[in-house]
Amino acid sequence: MSETLKRLSAVIESRKPANGGDPDKSYVARLFSKGDDAILKKIGEEATELVMAAKDARAGADKSKVLYECADLWFHSAVLLAQFDLTPQDVVNELARREGISGIEEKAARKAD
Amino acid sequence: MSETLKRLSAVIESRKPANGGDPDKSYVARLFSKGDDAILKKIGEEATELVMAAKDARAGADKSKVLYECADLWFHSAVLLAQFDLTPQDVVNELARREGISGIEEKAARKAD
Amino acid sequence: MSETLKRLSAVIESRKPANGGDPDKSYVARLFSKGDDAILKKIGEEATELVMAAKDARAGADKSKVLYECADLWFHSAVLLAQFDLTPQDVVNELARREGISGIEEKAARKAD
Amino acid sequence: MSETLKRLSAVIESRKPANGGDPDKSYVARLFSKGDDAILKKIGEEATELVMAAKDARAGADKSKVLYECADLWFHSAVLLAQFDLTPQDVVNELARREGISGIEEKAARKAD
Repeated sequence: MSETLKRLSAVIESRKPANGGDPDKSYVARLFSKGDDAILKKIGEEATELVMAAKDARAGADKSKVLYECADLWFHSAVLLAQFDLTPQDVVNELARREGISGIEEKAARKAD
Repeated sequence: MSETLKRLSAVIESRKPANGGDPDKSYVARLFSKGDDAILKKIGEEATELVMAAKDARAGADKSKVLYECADLWFHSAVLLAQFDLTPQDVVNELARREGISGIEEKAARKAD
Repeated sequence: MSETLKRLSAVIESRKPANGGDPDKSYVARLFSKGDDAILKKIGEEATELVMAAKDARAGADKSKVLYECADLWFHSAVLLAQFDLTPQDVVNELARREGISGIEEKAARKAD
Repeated sequence: MSETLKRLSAVIESRKPANGGDPDKSYVARLFSKGDDAILKKIGEEATELVMAAKDARAGADKSKVLYECADLWFHSAVLLAQFDLTPQDVVNELARREGISGIEEKAARKAD
């Protein structure tokens, strides 16, 4: 996996209360201390902001906002994954697994033609 | 970047109409041919499904659904990024940039103590 | 309550499988037969579409789409409410209750000034 | 229309800056002063919370939370409508219009049987 995603995962993990994360010093530790619902609300909020940024970009705004909002969404997804002891690596592995299946399906489809 | 994300990005790019993507054969080509709104609806839908999967997991369901729905959300995010000629690599770079800023801020905060 | 909301509620109620709703003939009966998750996905989808319509209207599109998407969102909310044996009337009552509380709070605030 | 929805609409309208709404005293005036994006974020957030409340209710929580979150969603929808000089009455009229169309369609369908 990307070194960045690995470090992101390690930083998030270190912010868990059980690992000494301090809600007074860290935003992620604060999310963990609030629990599932606070994190899930952020997923809904960041997804909405990504949709808004895409619409704004089409209306002439800088497309960098699409990038920032997508980064926000992936970041909060990673915090949610950590709540379930999952990591961005697991997501990337799942995407690779699907790619493999899709590749097989495509080969099968070609043969069937 | 992760080889998987790089390949994901290349596959998505190849599905654009301008690159010969065929809406009759590929789900992603179909999304591209429908345009922004179809992709944005999927962002909203997949974010909702991720929230639902997390709630289901807390109520006893297998947490693998959290993983699958997160993969769905990241996948459709990557399709949206491609609509703006952005890539998962750009998102990972943005996350790395923030990590750097955050690291600097933490050092500054420690000095200020 | 508005006669319209009352009739809407009655129509939705009549579409429940237990009340003879036929998934082959009615969209709402189909949603009920699929269950919670199908309805919740629609809530997420329609909320996203409302956000998109508002952005489109600001970019020059007709604002009637904001109205249509809001009606879609309220309609699917009413289906969700019915899943929990709640009605639009209950929501309107709750809004009235809050208005009363808010009125009391405002009076209290004026006295405190 | 329901008297409650009419009063809700009037209260929201009175909170617009142009009508003397004061962001320091009123939550709705504060939303208006922040503009579209603040209101749209709330739509996404409240829709997510409604989905969460429904899942919680199925897992044993009190269903009153479904009602409260639906009221929150309709309330913020009404604020968004006001941004476009639309009202809950317009939404109810649109639902009535559809009911009429649906009624006609049903009659047509019965004749076709």
